[in-house]
Amino acid sequence: MQVQVISSVNEASTARFHHKTAVIIDALRATSTIVTAIAAGALCVIPAETVMEARALQRPGDLLGGERFCRRIAGFDLGNSPEEYTEQAVAGKRIVLTTTNGTRAIHKAMRADYVLTASFLNADACARAAVDLRRDVVILCAGSHDEFAIEDGLCAGLVLDRMHAALGGPIDMDDFGTAMLAMYKDRSARLKETIMNGSSGKRLLKLGMKRDIEACSAVDVYREVPRLNGDQLTRG
Amino acid sequence: MQVQVISSVNEASTARFHHKTAVIIDALRATSTIVTAIAAGALCVIPAETVMEARALQRPGDLLGGERFCRRIAGFDLGNSPEEYTEQAVAGKRIVLTTTNGTRAIHKAMRADYVLTASFLNADACARAAVDLRRDVVILCAGSHDEFAIEDGLCAGLVLDRMHAALGGPIDMDDFGTAMLAMYKDRSARLKETIMNGSSGKRLLKLGMKRDIEACSAVDVYREVPRLNGDQLTRG
Repeated sequence: MQVQVISSVNEASTARFHHKTAVIIDALRATSTIVTAIAAGALCVIPAETVMEARALQRPGDLLGGERFCRRIAGFDLGNSPEEYTEQAVAGKRIVLTTTNGTRAIHKAMRADYVLTASFLNADACARAAVDLRRDVVILCAGSHDEFAIEDGLCAGLVLDRMHAALGGPIDMDDFGTAMLAMYKDRSARLKETIMNGSSGKRLLKLGMKRDIEACSAVDVYREVPRLNGDQLTRG
Repeated sequence: MQVQVISSVNEASTARFHHKTAVIIDALRATSTIVTAIAAGALCVIPAETVMEARALQRPGDLLGGERFCRRIAGFDLGNSPEEYTEQAVAGKRIVLTTTNGTRAIHKAMRADYVLTASFLNADACARAAVDLRRDVVILCAGSHDEFAIEDGLCAGLVLDRMHAALGGPIDMDDFGTAMLAMYKDRSARLKETIMNGSSGKRLLKLGMKRDIEACSAVDVYREVPRLNGDQLTRG
């Protein structure tokens, strides 16, 4: 099993996902929000690339969620904070979600055999699911503003660490994967601090969204692995 | 002083270097070879992007050096192994050098106010020179085959570590810089092993060039900082 890690969504070409398992990471906040929604009992999350597409996909009873410039989109039911996706709000509902980077990353990977979404919240479960699927793996760090984002790299390192444990031996990784695993190991005791000092972390702090960072940086809270079926992310 | 780190040469746009100090890293092997040549008394190293350009730049008495597919170019005086660049071979000579990634990276950065070349061999000296130049810094990891190469990332982390020491305090880095510094810290006791397990390292091992990896992974051996003056790299 070979594992490649891609540093940001604009580095990803769709061809790289053929016959692979894709693991999509946008830890602040899309993939954290998605797993929180699924764990809270949402029927599915439908990723949409644009606001217009999200509105077009909405059927009666569906919730619209997402952000632009980190804020809830006008007229949408929900933003992109995991905390909003409570059982009360989302259980039994379909959610159409559009975010700046995360949903774009999921669309990039659609040609993969399997598409899983990972975050700190479900890293171990996602790593084990990826190992069980017995395909080569491409981990796509969504990044931010077309650049590498440290929280996504740390989460990739965490997933690699958990895959290593699940496989019971070293993983055949590319150089970027080796770097992310080493980086995670250096920072594992200071994850939240490192995330808050990153550029996305600073941006959210400035907007008063510290609680989102805290909610997104908890490790292995959920066993759910949202997985793409057609155009819907469902409980894996 | 802000520091950005670019993961590979195809990520680098010339605009990012304006008014900055560029630090170019191609640890296996171009920037290691360049500092070895300058330390051995070469007058200058002239980076050329193509074999044809190298031949055109050669004046009587100049040496031609470089590689394609890791091997010495037919008809050239020298390859891209630091060991070839002895005092006996290069002292008092101008060297025209063309390599697959390193010389391309130097050309990308030509609009910077200053262009320095760094390797494990002269990381501390280069870090101090960059700090003394009092510009924002862009560290460009050349990479290999248009991908991130772990040895260049490790060397970037080492340079950041040394800049931190020279500044006597934390550096204002982008997320990729933070990642490379953390990765270096995790791996600093196993540098050579990590480099040999990387994709460039494996390629050189397969070609029987283990001694090159050993020569290139020694830390802080030289105080020379080859620096671009016009089209020539000279003792800084």
